[in-house]
Amino acid sequence: MIIVLGKKADDKAIEELTEEIENKGLKVFISRGEQKIIVGAMGDERLLNIDHLKALPFVEKVMPITALYKLASREFHPEDTIIKVNGCEIGGDNLTIIAGPCAIESEKQMLETAHAVKDAGASILRGSAFKPRTSPYDFQGLAEEGLKILKKAKEETGLPIETEVMDTRHVELVAKYVDILRVGARNMQNFDLLKEVGRTNKPVILKNGVASTMKEFLMAAEYIMSEGNENVILCNRGIRCYEPELRFPILSGLTNLIKQKTHLPVIVDPSHSTGNKSLVVPVSKAAIAEGADGIIVEVHNCPEEAKCDAAQQLTPPEFREMMVELRKIGEAVGKKL
Amino acid sequence: MIIVLGKKADDKAIEELTEEIENKGLKVFISRGEQKIIVGAMGDERLLNIDHLKALPFVEKVMPITALYKLASREFHPEDTIIKVNGCEIGGDNLTIIAGPCAIESEKQMLETAHAVKDAGASILRGSAFKPRTSPYDFQGLAEEGLKILKKAKEETGLPIETEVMDTRHVELVAKYVDILRVGARNMQNFDLLKEVGRTNKPVILKNGVASTMKEFLMAAEYIMSEGNENVILCNRGIRCYEPELRFPILSGLTNLIKQKTHLPVIVDPSHSTGNKSLVVPVSKAAIAEGADGIIVEVHNCPEEAKCDAAQQLTPPEFREMMVELRKIGEAVGKKL
Amino acid sequence: MIIVLGKKADDKAIEELTEEIENKGLKVFISRGEQKIIVGAMGDERLLNIDHLKALPFVEKVMPITALYKLASREFHPEDTIIKVNGCEIGGDNLTIIAGPCAIESEKQMLETAHAVKDAGASILRGSAFKPRTSPYDFQGLAEEGLKILKKAKEETGLPIETEVMDTRHVELVAKYVDILRVGARNMQNFDLLKEVGRTNKPVILKNGVASTMKEFLMAAEYIMSEGNENVILCNRGIRCYEPELRFPILSGLTNLIKQKTHLPVIVDPSHSTGNKSLVVPVSKAAIAEGADGIIVEVHNCPEEAKCDAAQQLTPPEFREMMVELRKIGEAVGKKL
Amino acid sequence: MIIVLGKKADDKAIEELTEEIENKGLKVFISRGEQKIIVGAMGDERLLNIDHLKALPFVEKVMPITALYKLASREFHPEDTIIKVNGCEIGGDNLTIIAGPCAIESEKQMLETAHAVKDAGASILRGSAFKPRTSPYDFQGLAEEGLKILKKAKEETGLPIETEVMDTRHVELVAKYVDILRVGARNMQNFDLLKEVGRTNKPVILKNGVASTMKEFLMAAEYIMSEGNENVILCNRGIRCYEPELRFPILSGLTNLIKQKTHLPVIVDPSHSTGNKSLVVPVSKAAIAEGADGIIVEVHNCPEEAKCDAAQQLTPPEFREMMVELRKIGEAVGKKL
Repeated sequence: MIIVLGKKADDKAIEELTEEIENKGLKVFISRGEQKIIVGAMGDERLLNIDHLKALPFVEKVMPITALYKLASREFHPEDTIIKVNGCEIGGDNLTIIAGPCAIESEKQMLETAHAVKDAGASILRGSAFKPRTSPYDFQGLAEEGLKILKKAKEETGLPIETEVMDTRHVELVAKYVDILRVGARNMQNFDLLKEVGRTNKPVILKNGVASTMKEFLMAAEYIMSEGNENVILCNRGIRCYEPELRFPILSGLTNLIKQKTHLPVIVDPSHSTGNKSLVVPVSKAAIAEGADGIIVEVHNCPEEAKCDAAQQLTPPEFREMMVELRKIGEAVGKKL
Repeated sequence: MIIVLGKKADDKAIEELTEEIENKGLKVFISRGEQKIIVGAMGDERLLNIDHLKALPFVEKVMPITALYKLASREFHPEDTIIKVNGCEIGGDNLTIIAGPCAIESEKQMLETAHAVKDAGASILRGSAFKPRTSPYDFQGLAEEGLKILKKAKEETGLPIETEVMDTRHVELVAKYVDILRVGARNMQNFDLLKEVGRTNKPVILKNGVASTMKEFLMAAEYIMSEGNENVILCNRGIRCYEPELRFPILSGLTNLIKQKTHLPVIVDPSHSTGNKSLVVPVSKAAIAEGADGIIVEVHNCPEEAKCDAAQQLTPPEFREMMVELRKIGEAVGKKL
Repeated sequence: MIIVLGKKADDKAIEELTEEIENKGLKVFISRGEQKIIVGAMGDERLLNIDHLKALPFVEKVMPITALYKLASREFHPEDTIIKVNGCEIGGDNLTIIAGPCAIESEKQMLETAHAVKDAGASILRGSAFKPRTSPYDFQGLAEEGLKILKKAKEETGLPIETEVMDTRHVELVAKYVDILRVGARNMQNFDLLKEVGRTNKPVILKNGVASTMKEFLMAAEYIMSEGNENVILCNRGIRCYEPELRFPILSGLTNLIKQKTHLPVIVDPSHSTGNKSLVVPVSKAAIAEGADGIIVEVHNCPEEAKCDAAQQLTPPEFREMMVELRKIGEAVGKKL
Repeated sequence: MIIVLGKKADDKAIEELTEEIENKGLKVFISRGEQKIIVGAMGDERLLNIDHLKALPFVEKVMPITALYKLASREFHPEDTIIKVNGCEIGGDNLTIIAGPCAIESEKQMLETAHAVKDAGASILRGSAFKPRTSPYDFQGLAEEGLKILKKAKEETGLPIETEVMDTRHVELVAKYVDILRVGARNMQNFDLLKEVGRTNKPVILKNGVASTMKEFLMAAEYIMSEGNENVILCNRGIRCYEPELRFPILSGLTNLIKQKTHLPVIVDPSHSTGNKSLVVPVSKAAIAEGADGIIVEVHNCPEEAKCDAAQQLTPPEFREMMVELRKIGEAVGKKL
């Protein structure tokens, strides 16, 4: 850690600071300039209390130099993590396509869509039974009834299933039904929920918050992992931006950068990012070209009747066409689909 | 609601669309141009299914023209809401100063700080027992132990108390101890939590998410209100921004605009917004000059020993000086402190 | 155009508004609701004075429904524009790779780099003689001396050349030396410069401003085109964002969306977007997968000695490797490189 | 400057790096940890070539610790700069109100408005003769004709006058007519223009770009100052943001922070920031409460007839009322109006 001191730092202050750092087992190096003094604290930075250091009246700036996440870091775990769910592998050389409707609306809708995405080559089935909606007056999902329908779709198609969990009180229930839990963007820093899913043995898809930094995203993964569940799949779903023509644009390069920093698989959500059918395919192709391990995409047997996010859900034929294009990009970058 | 149709819209499509809207009890007006057709749907827009309209293949754009929030809207409730807590009034001509430490760390720290802020003129005491921290390795708060300390501080000073609640499972417990519940920025769209605090009879301070729009913020208040609890105090705590020198800057004008749109009281959090002591006072003065109903500010009896957010917490003498300056601004804008 | 009126709009007001719109040759449609009145103005919206309409005291909102750009719009010019420069074609099925150093530093540097990028398959040579630098104390470019060197590189390699022009007073000079003019991000709304390059007969690469919307970007192209020069190549170079780990991230999907809206070719600048060598290749691959017509990338014969942006410039061997990978993606999306 | 080295840094690399830094006259301090090595370079950081340092393959990060601006820095010039224009003082304890129409449209409009703002207590008259407009089809200003009208308004009222200059070729002409030059947000990094106004002896109002950082803003001021013109007035006009209800929001606290870093006066532009009359007064009050040295605000004798930005221009009576309110805030913060 680097600590920059201003002119107010006298010898006594520096001495006390040095003692505080050395007491935690780090080594101290001091560089004296005319305007500033730089203190380097070398060792395990996690042991230092940054908040306290920042509050010292003679400290101008505190800059960590090593990552604050550890379990999620590629530095400590260089090889790719590959997560296995019912015979399906996520990460490594695999390209994983997770598809299905935004919300589970009825048995007919779910089963028809499930068969359609399975036939087109999807590996995992998605569908939400608990829906986070901006308005309290909008459709909130079928709850446990929806989970039962989703499970039936799994039994009929053999596809592993995933769904969102929003409330700490539902984790146990949801985990009973599905293979993969999903934590949505709005709950990326719902720390109690992260801990709760970290105590299950189910893989977790964790979406980034729409204003989170990469570091905060990886720290959220660390929350889950620090409870013992290391099967985290990061999902890049884009950020809030001033451009009115795009909804939550994915930052090009971020998926690749996250994969440089962590060993966890990273997938992309083109549906919630764009909110616009005409962009779902190009954004998916870009994601795979850049290095994503897969995508999670919304497909609905009849989008015009969908109860939410209707404008972004692909029809089964559109999904089939997309799969053809994604296979070509997958081949160009050496991934198996 | 305005629905813009493109060239693909034939007579049959328009007829069906008209029927769908009229079935909900709204009136339809059609304007035909050469390139576009505009359909105006006049009446209660909340009855229409926007998602469905957007998904129709011949629809280019759907633009609501009335607000989607209703209970929170000043249109339906023109006069200011004034919330009363233990004899303290929030809203209207009142300027409310909520002060106290970021986290409750010990009885000594809490009681000393409580007396100090009371003496300087604060109206309500703050302090967190459950702490949302970016890292799982950081101090997470004293939990119920902290709530007991906070209650003791209330008994000693007579100040009403407020604290954060993060988990649906804790709402009942927290509501037993404190006068006001706080929902933090990270949980602004934790809809289950919003519903749960909406089922209590305690006033709720709701902070905006750091990437939320004003409309989403008001819809989050609507979630709480739609469960029956109309005592919501909105807290403008700033947004994520690219400027590295500021942490979560408050947008100048937003507090005033929110007050134009809603009857609920709006306060500002200068501490979490700036993360920098030298800016807490100027940002507080600006907030009151613009029309805020109060501020919530961090004060610690000994900031250098604070376990979190040390750099932004004022000392008791700094807080006293700030109160002097805020009184002058309050007078200039006709508010009582 | 849609004009929403509030309760203050009486019959006289609506009559005058109607007259104003009809006087410009547009048709008026009126939809009356209880709370709002919607006025639809159908016809050529560019003829209306939006500013005036917005200022009327009874007008709440004015929403254009057709694009304000015309020459740049695909609606009026459906087929792709293909720009020809010295036998090189940009747009359509062509993938154009523009490569070269950030700044022209010396004859040796420029010629070595030029030969290297030509050998690896680049189509156009880049290099700046006038450099926009954030600090007045940094290297500002070789000016005309640099243009002479660039021209020599063209003579030796046969590659067409492009360079930045920053000052209206330099347009004539620069146009004498190079084949393509470039307007940088900082000058996207330097309207006098746009007009001046619009009066030349040289193709212009126009970069988006780092906080511009897509509409503003297309309006800037319209400035150039409205002076008679329709050979505009749009360059998506990313935007300012809060993420500290990326410099000016490209929004995934935006290149594709721009191409839906305009017939002009769109290229991507991975070098200035990322500022980070390890991301230049992934971002380039994503751009091409999504539909970009090419990239403009920085290559330097010896990046460690570069006078600016050293960390983002590829070495010749790195560039050759990148070309191999881009060819694969190009094939996957049906483009010729 | 702090340079963080990764594992690739061997002794030879460190030796060469040390030599490079010492050759520029700075001292080198080295702190060796297990994972990283920190090199502190103490002395005048402006002498080092950051670009080169960043490009070294073993360098992970380069962090300057002193500001890159010098002439603009309060560190080198602690007391407030007070700029005098025709007997009017800007900076220090003075509150300066600059008022007038967005664009100069006619002699009648300009003279009526000039008298009105003078009567209400404005200190300086504003008005644009050259207008930067997003669309090439919009009103572009009266050019020299406008400057003549503006000068006449000065002669009639005695108020000093200011106007925008957009093109290097117009600086000489504009400087002949007005007392203060203005560089708009779109040209904050039009470096040739900055240099050109830096070569005049007229005070310059410099607006921040809508996506510029504070450092870039101060570096732009440095461009002007480094040419010999130290009379720069910074104007905080807000930034681009995702919130659709605000146009270019001012960040609360930024004006105060800029004043901590520089000795130059800082004013705020509430008109272009909000684009909304109902917010102009609250944002102005907040600016002054926070420490701004003045505001520049749009007033039009008849806003409904304005050729641009009509919705944000105050009428003379509205301006008079605002002045009453600003005087109260000015008194509360100890400034003279």
